[in-house]
Amino acid sequence: MKTFAVKGNLLYTPSPSRMVCLPRHFLVCENGRVAGTFPALPEKYAGIDVVDCGNGLIVPGLADLHLHAPQYAFRGLGMDRELLDWLREYTFPEEARYADLAYAEKAYRLFADDLKKSATTRACIFATIHTDATLLLMRMLEETGLVAAVGKVNMDVNSPDYYCESTAVSLSGTERWIMQSRAEFRNVFPILTPRFAPACSAKLMAALGDLQQKHALPLQSHLSESPAEVAWVKSLFPDCRFYGDVYDRFGLFGSNGPTVMAHCVYSSADEVELIGKRGVFIAHCPQSNVNLSSGIAPAKAYLESGLRMGLGSDIAGGFSLSGFRGISDAIQVSKLRFRLQDDSQRPLSLTEAFYLATKGGGAFFGKVGSFEAGYEFDALVLDDRSLPATGELAPEDRLSRLVYLGDDRCIRRKYVSGKKILG
Amino acid sequence: MKTFAVKGNLLYTPSPSRMVCLPRHFLVCENGRVAGTFPALPEKYAGIDVVDCGNGLIVPGLADLHLHAPQYAFRGLGMDRELLDWLREYTFPEEARYADLAYAEKAYRLFADDLKKSATTRACIFATIHTDATLLLMRMLEETGLVAAVGKVNMDVNSPDYYCESTAVSLSGTERWIMQSRAEFRNVFPILTPRFAPACSAKLMAALGDLQQKHALPLQSHLSESPAEVAWVKSLFPDCRFYGDVYDRFGLFGSNGPTVMAHCVYSSADEVELIGKRGVFIAHCPQSNVNLSSGIAPAKAYLESGLRMGLGSDIAGGFSLSGFRGISDAIQVSKLRFRLQDDSQRPLSLTEAFYLATKGGGAFFGKVGSFEAGYEFDALVLDDRSLPATGELAPEDRLSRLVYLGDDRCIRRKYVSGKKILG
Repeated sequence: MKTFAVKGNLLYTPSPSRMVCLPRHFLVCENGRVAGTFPALPEKYAGIDVVDCGNGLIVPGLADLHLHAPQYAFRGLGMDRELLDWLREYTFPEEARYADLAYAEKAYRLFADDLKKSATTRACIFATIHTDATLLLMRMLEETGLVAAVGKVNMDVNSPDYYCESTAVSLSGTERWIMQSRAEFRNVFPILTPRFAPACSAKLMAALGDLQQKHALPLQSHLSESPAEVAWVKSLFPDCRFYGDVYDRFGLFGSNGPTVMAHCVYSSADEVELIGKRGVFIAHCPQSNVNLSSGIAPAKAYLESGLRMGLGSDIAGGFSLSGFRGISDAIQVSKLRFRLQDDSQRPLSLTEAFYLATKGGGAFFGKVGSFEAGYEFDALVLDDRSLPATGELAPEDRLSRLVYLGDDRCIRRKYVSGKKILG
Repeated sequence: MKTFAVKGNLLYTPSPSRMVCLPRHFLVCENGRVAGTFPALPEKYAGIDVVDCGNGLIVPGLADLHLHAPQYAFRGLGMDRELLDWLREYTFPEEARYADLAYAEKAYRLFADDLKKSATTRACIFATIHTDATLLLMRMLEETGLVAAVGKVNMDVNSPDYYCESTAVSLSGTERWIMQSRAEFRNVFPILTPRFAPACSAKLMAALGDLQQKHALPLQSHLSESPAEVAWVKSLFPDCRFYGDVYDRFGLFGSNGPTVMAHCVYSSADEVELIGKRGVFIAHCPQSNVNLSSGIAPAKAYLESGLRMGLGSDIAGGFSLSGFRGISDAIQVSKLRFRLQDDSQRPLSLTEAFYLATKGGGAFFGKVGSFEAGYEFDALVLDDRSLPATGELAPEDRLSRLVYLGDDRCIRRKYVSGKKILG
């Protein structure tokens, strides 16, 4: 891969409390990684290609740590339900349709096209229980150039008849999907995906733990999202100390590989402690937690405790695929949490929320989400000319406006590991 | 004005609990008002012009009951402050710049252009304390074809030196502005605008009460927005029973003309009772109340009590001018209020929030915000082809998606009182 540079106003967050702004700087890419940031191009880079983005902003690509691809087609619908009703009335009937590969092709095409145009460069994605449709989705995502962890969903109990697997079928499908996707894809990789504790038998979870060790796989699931769900888990697993303990007893809570758990709105102190101890990533999904009337996760406290955390759109509990919307939603709900629930925790700052969307979530994929040397060259070139101002604004203020007011029209160019995939 | 019809999927809310959907119907406009809705064009209308909007949705124009035009240029900035700090650090310095008519011209142009392109057809707008800049804004808005109540702001105490009037100048400027705007404009009209109780002397408020009676004017102000503001009002007016009582003692609380009060997040039971008794409109501003960490107004309870209420973007406490965003924000914050503050009040439904944005707020302007016969012909033609689905959706579901996911690209045509002003 050729060494090159992009030039513009660089903004990134090496830590949750620090936004670095480098006006009109060069960001050099070598072998798909950031070689450095420079006010003028050093002699050793003389003659490399430079993409001059003028007065544009350049920021790290955003990571979306939690979303359901097969729910994309009905985003913005059914927003008057809480989690368990919403799953029963909207989600499961729709996901069941992906048994039909022709339907899957049509619906996943909408999703893959829009994800490619979005601010997201890396994502953790739930598919459905269907092995072939999951492979189809992975094939489409591979073509976009995005990096994605995609999971065939496992669910063998407490699920509707029309959308449930036997334990044996779930496991054989999972093994086939792992082998096939590993053979076929470079940017897209399999992630074990037990839907959530209530939908998985003990036998299934134990076998998934074995599979995780055997194949060295990451894992994603849901945790402590809504009051009714938490109560249900408690009734199903009365001897477990807390929701996360269910996963942990089967080795599915970070002890056998990188693990991301979505939501953590109602995690007890014990659960939070284990999340930290096991290095589990939290996917904070503010918009979904509002839409399903779930509540507000204490993201500020998690951040201050040093937990690993990123943002998730949680399509279609969340209706918006936009990572910028995710940042502003995270800030907004943290303000309401401060005002209504716990005024000892200040709201998230723009810098903190931006960190979560970039380096915080990016860490699930390695050295991702920053412009520090050695990080993967995932970058967005942003154009805010559709947001006119009455005078010159500082780059940090322009980023604030993009976060609150920007849309897909503002994303002019997108790189993943040094490859331009958009623009 | 010629009689004509638009044809498409009509959606409107005659009451907070009822969404009427009339697929592929004709909406007839006679003398700027709705003559009726028909599955086929009645014989008496044979030969009138028909605008066929195909499979598009047609909904009433939205009313924005509260926004600050001079804050539009800095929307999306300074979102890390609460109300009183935000006023001092961002708002007052920016508003003071409107003393310069050249600056006002440049900044108000951005606002007027964007408001014209938005889903809003009618608005209640704060300008600044500057009479000439306020007239300039009104001139620009008059050209858009929108209907707007615009207020020169009054503030003579507790305001920064650089942005404060003497009582005499405030009143003389107000009289000149009333006379001049009444002589000059047809669609845009003056609305008395004491900024909020803390910024107005008793002498000023008493005189504004006289002016309101003399000129038969509507009035707009702020009420019970944030905890610190409510405490401040209590300390400034210790003998008043509650915040709204301050206005009421000077006749500024609906007793002398149509009145709209923004926010009402912290209205006491007594205040709510007086709001109802005086027929005061509440401008519910969910996004602003989040951004400034103010809280969540009990909109559902207000609606159930039969109070008069609409939505306000409250630019730039709110960053978004979009009335659709206002609808989804109203629903979203009502869910968090339900979950975190008072689970006896269910969240707002889409129908209820849509009602607030159309007929609820429209009522401030007369028979506005519905397609019932006799209502002003304010209509939006919406195009949701940028939101592809995997199959045919019912018009109500398409509206849901537009509310959550649409943007200015979806607004194809806009009528105000029967005049096409966009598209």
